[in-house]
Amino acid sequence: MQASESGAVAFARENGARFVEELKALLRIPSISTSPEHAGDVRLAAQFVAEELSRIGMENVHLIETASAQHPGGHPLVYADWLKAGKDAVTVLCYGHYDVQPAEPLEEWVTPPFEPTERDGNLYARGAVDDKGQMWMHVKALESLFAANGGKLPVNVRVIVEGEEEVGGEGIASFVREHGDQLKADVAVVSDTEMFAPELPTLCVGLRGMIYTEIEVRGAKTDLHSGMYGGAAPNPFVALAQIISKLKDEQGRVQIPGFYDKVAAPTADELKAWKALPFDEEHYRKTEVGSRELTGEAEYSVLERTWARPTLDVHGMPGGFIGAGAKTVIPAKAVAKVSMRLVPDQTPAESFAAYKAFVGSIVPKGVEVEVRLIHSGDPIVVSTDNPYVKAATEAMHEVFGKETVFVRGGGSIPIVGDFVRELKIPTLMMGFGLPDDNLHAPNEKFHLANFHRGIESLIRFFASVGA
Amino acid sequence: MQASESGAVAFARENGARFVEELKALLRIPSISTSPEHAGDVRLAAQFVAEELSRIGMENVHLIETASAQHPGGHPLVYADWLKAGKDAVTVLCYGHYDVQPAEPLEEWVTPPFEPTERDGNLYARGAVDDKGQMWMHVKALESLFAANGGKLPVNVRVIVEGEEEVGGEGIASFVREHGDQLKADVAVVSDTEMFAPELPTLCVGLRGMIYTEIEVRGAKTDLHSGMYGGAAPNPFVALAQIISKLKDEQGRVQIPGFYDKVAAPTADELKAWKALPFDEEHYRKTEVGSRELTGEAEYSVLERTWARPTLDVHGMPGGFIGAGAKTVIPAKAVAKVSMRLVPDQTPAESFAAYKAFVGSIVPKGVEVEVRLIHSGDPIVVSTDNPYVKAATEAMHEVFGKETVFVRGGGSIPIVGDFVRELKIPTLMMGFGLPDDNLHAPNEKFHLANFHRGIESLIRFFASVGA
Repeated sequence: MQASESGAVAFARENGARFVEELKALLRIPSISTSPEHAGDVRLAAQFVAEELSRIGMENVHLIETASAQHPGGHPLVYADWLKAGKDAVTVLCYGHYDVQPAEPLEEWVTPPFEPTERDGNLYARGAVDDKGQMWMHVKALESLFAANGGKLPVNVRVIVEGEEEVGGEGIASFVREHGDQLKADVAVVSDTEMFAPELPTLCVGLRGMIYTEIEVRGAKTDLHSGMYGGAAPNPFVALAQIISKLKDEQGRVQIPGFYDKVAAPTADELKAWKALPFDEEHYRKTEVGSRELTGEAEYSVLERTWARPTLDVHGMPGGFIGAGAKTVIPAKAVAKVSMRLVPDQTPAESFAAYKAFVGSIVPKGVEVEVRLIHSGDPIVVSTDNPYVKAATEAMHEVFGKETVFVRGGGSIPIVGDFVRELKIPTLMMGFGLPDDNLHAPNEKFHLANFHRGIESLIRFFASVGA
Repeated sequence: MQASESGAVAFARENGARFVEELKALLRIPSISTSPEHAGDVRLAAQFVAEELSRIGMENVHLIETASAQHPGGHPLVYADWLKAGKDAVTVLCYGHYDVQPAEPLEEWVTPPFEPTERDGNLYARGAVDDKGQMWMHVKALESLFAANGGKLPVNVRVIVEGEEEVGGEGIASFVREHGDQLKADVAVVSDTEMFAPELPTLCVGLRGMIYTEIEVRGAKTDLHSGMYGGAAPNPFVALAQIISKLKDEQGRVQIPGFYDKVAAPTADELKAWKALPFDEEHYRKTEVGSRELTGEAEYSVLERTWARPTLDVHGMPGGFIGAGAKTVIPAKAVAKVSMRLVPDQTPAESFAAYKAFVGSIVPKGVEVEVRLIHSGDPIVVSTDNPYVKAATEAMHEVFGKETVFVRGGGSIPIVGDFVRELKIPTLMMGFGLPDDNLHAPNEKFHLANFHRGIESLIRFFASVGA
């Protein structure tokens, strides 16, 4: 360990209790980005973060407004930088978000969501781990480095913190697309993921992409009474059922021609590493999913199925009568919300085209079908042979005392795609959440030991890439 | 024509304009049974009918309250009788309803729904034909017979008029079940159906029955994120699609084993008569259904498919995400509202048992399924070889100058089932509506020529069965 690094770690340890108290103050602000009535709180949280970034020594701190005619109600970005490490020094882009999910259902919280409470080594609050707590690790790692190095950092740093992650991140996506030059860096660090298991330092190096679509089926020109017309009029729900049952077979294999053509298998090393992970399928089935059986392609492991295999799901089928009791309507139209998760090297454009063509080829008698793309995201794999991955791996290894594992995520984190695609830089997903941290659910928490270990890991990472 | 009959017809013709004005007064009362705020209007309509029944000479006129702890908000029945035709005389039970559907969307009415307006020989108002106008024909036929026969009727008559037909008819169903003896009669006459075509006197002699069910599919114990779990967790909508696509094949044939075993084919006479009806399949497809093609069992005609063949429809699929945009949820459960129309001699009990067993045999991997019966109704065929059918047929033939046609209805009229099952009497569905009368829709109307011809047909019918 270098002097600057050990000093910063010592500072973080001495000030750890204060860091937690500051985080609590931030958690008390109900910055729920989806609620217009909390717009003031969302801005308050942005200002709170901006003030702290100024106080610790970051420069050029300001809010970037994202609201516009195209994006009404947009919440501000917080920007800060410190670029005095020199022209040849590495520049790190730190990303986090200060907005949170709604807290409902409130009655299921043991302690109120916006009154942060410590219990059993955990800090309970909405946003504790997603993402205020993890974002705060970055701020506190930087503070510790400034403090131990006479107001200097070992690397150039830019910080961008958004307030719309929980509502789609449109503001930051536009900013990255239009003003990517203002975020110029060599590597991005995102702490918004979780560790594979307690005590197991984890780097997430891949994310599935997706296409989210709607299939609209139209039959009669108006809603009809099933007594009068049943047996002669097309039924859009029956037609949708026929279409959906042809999209994926009962073994979980998507039936769209060519769908799997570009699927890249994980490397042998990756597969070997996944096999070594502490994963108990029966425990996962019982405690996480809670279904009678797991489904999907039986020839692949659950981790392969959720990380490295594409799949297809139906999320809802609006239309017709959904109240209690009976209404004998043959609806004029019905919709299925269908998404596909994609993996490298599938592309949203090719996958959607193949899907749309296939649906068009299996339209049942009597109905018309429209297939719409609602949104899409690229699948991502982060190359692991670069010095930043090495630095992060070693930093976490040192702090946790265990080898860092590489995993993938089944979902998408749009900002990672934006960084990879627009900024063309490697993005490290160094997350310190735990699988049972209750993200988006009541009793969200952050294991405080991981908050402190996260700060130390980041200090070591900054010091290492700056060495 | 007997003297009493011709006198009554003459009276009806002389007083026809007054009859229409009285009907308008009744139509001005917005007796919308589904709206608690119109409960007072519903009662007002009941009182209006009761007062007129007293005035014309009916006896024992009173309201029967149906509201109870089990049936809060129940609307009253109007009862009246005249039983002085003698012990050996036939007793006719007249049924109608004085409640109406809501009038929304109001902006689509050419003239306001509760301001009855004559245009082009039609009377426009909510309830004009369904069923205030048709019920009023019964009252006015009876008035004409009283007037022409010195205050006597040629038959014994009971009148029962309900105020809940548009909201399920629970009150009258309970009354028929529990106090059927108070409605003892030889034949019931229901005027709540339509003529097959303009100028074509029509007797409806069959109705399909139904079972209305829900299939609930449960997968994971809680809603899951499709990014994290897609590929391993069961998807209830996909499971429902697989089930539904196995319930009915793409040729419209229900796949439940034994489902068709008890289906009775219409008689050769009935089929011959249907073939002779003025029915243009292409016109029906274009103007009534408006779909690209008609569906269902191609080996049967459209009238057979909708009148004499059972079928299966899906009405809605509650669960998951149905808002605008994208939410990547794998819902813990989803429901399909599935109904089957039944024909003689299928029974709801046997059909439901076979359906439930079949669904149980095709449960997809990873999910649990519950099949619930929401409600059911027996299919009905009225025997046509009795003197009442003959009397009705001839009465309408005389008035319209055309042979009366026998048709069936694809839907169910629960009260007809109640009369057949509980009172064990033939029930004549003598309806004088037209296919374009806009039942349940904006601009409901009653063709006034049919109002008057309906009154004359009823006069002749009463006179004939009383002769």
